Amino acid sequence: MHIFYTPDIHSQTSSHTLPEEESKHCVRVMRLTTSDRIMLIDGRGGRYIAEIVDPHPKHTLLNIVSFSQDEPRQGKIHLVVAPTKNIDRYEWFLEKATEIGLDEITPIICEHSERKAVKLDRLAKVLIAAMKQSKQSFLPQLNQVTKLSDFLNTETSDKCFIAHCEEDSKSYINEKLSAGENAMILIGPEGDFSSQEIAIALDKGYVPISLGSSRLRTETAAVVACIEVALINR
Amino acid sequence: MHIFYTPDIHSQTSSHTLPEEESKHCVRVMRLTTSDRIMLIDGRGGRYIAEIVDPHPKHTLLNIVSFSQDEPRQGKIHLVVAPTKNIDRYEWFLEKATEIGLDEITPIICEHSERKAVKLDRLAKVLIAAMKQSKQSFLPQLNQVTKLSDFLNTETSDKCFIAHCEEDSKSYINEKLSAGENAMILIGPEGDFSSQEIAIALDKGYVPISLGSSRLRTETAAVVACIEVALINR
Repeated sequence: MHIFYTPDIHSQTSSHTLPEEESKHCVRVMRLTTSDRIMLIDGRGGRYIAEIVDPHPKHTLLNIVSFSQDEPRQGKIHLVVAPTKNIDRYEWFLEKATEIGLDEITPIICEHSERKAVKLDRLAKVLIAAMKQSKQSFLPQLNQVTKLSDFLNTETSDKCFIAHCEEDSKSYINEKLSAGENAMILIGPEGDFSSQEIAIALDKGYVPISLGSSRLRTETAAVVACIEVALINR
Repeated sequence: MHIFYTPDIHSQTSSHTLPEEESKHCVRVMRLTTSDRIMLIDGRGGRYIAEIVDPHPKHTLLNIVSFSQDEPRQGKIHLVVAPTKNIDRYEWFLEKATEIGLDEITPIICEHSERKAVKLDRLAKVLIAAMKQSKQSFLPQLNQVTKLSDFLNTETSDKCFIAHCEEDSKSYINEKLSAGENAMILIGPEGDFSSQEIAIALDKGYVPISLGSSRLRTETAAVVACIEVALINR
């Protein structure tokens, strides 16, 4: 069944009108018509079966037939990753992490970051497309771009990890994280974190982790970390 | 130290001349000159420290200073993956799998494959670039494109797995594979394997595996499988 992302509906909604772009996609592209059924997801775990009442290319009217709420994932993962110089690699990571299971993402700017800005609306589109494509109902939370120095001052109850590349006695995530525990993982830019950034994170109680012996690109490290947490909670 | 891929040298080589393209890269792009040192890798685990004797843009002469042989990875992984419709996704998977740890790759053509051909030389370039970038010394073996029906008739001593999407009682790789064991994993095209292909594979003793509850794209499934095996052997 075709899936549409409709963040503005809720469990009590009985009828809904698709906005112009999605109405056009529904009627002109997918050629759906009266009494055809589609699935709506609200990005918060809600799934709605909807029946087309009026297949209009600009404002298709739907009747909500049923609603179900997916259980939120246990053991959430918040990835705090420096945007890559080539933003395609970052968008690729967002797509993959969403497919695998991502709850929250914060782009951070570090001392060695070559890229200091990202287009959040563009990243949001990637997350939505990946959520729909992988038939999930929870949209990862995309946070504002934040300076690492500021981010390290925020409070969290998550287990905090930092995947830096300097020589250090590191653990593997599965040695420090149990199923059901929330994880927050810092991944640095191409030039890695600065020694000072690492020192501050360790001082804040971040646990240094190794993602394996091979040297991984930023976006690869982020996906490996995401998969490791997913495996712990599988 | 800058790394060059030189498959034609061996442990006894005392001097070597870089071919035109790499000589140009070495002298014109990297601006290296007499007595500068570079690392040569042969793709078979051999690492060579070489000193530039004659920095010529077309035939740079090197003196091999030292040689060391890396230990081959224990618990090899052979990924047998249907090329994706969009070949960029396949090349992305090859890059990531090489970074993480890939030993052998066979592109397979299945009943539901939309893409029936790939440019092997282009895929080889991706593998070489990823090997150099991740500072590894073993180049994954790239096999000819093979029909799945033919591939399933080949003999192997590897533990064989198939990651299909049909409902089935599946295991996780780490329930069926121990550290040090070689794994061969089949990943199907966008349309999944056909029921007949799955039946034949199971009949041949392939173990059906699950890569998690979420629906993964072909290239994502291949990377997840690669990481799972890497974690088992970590």
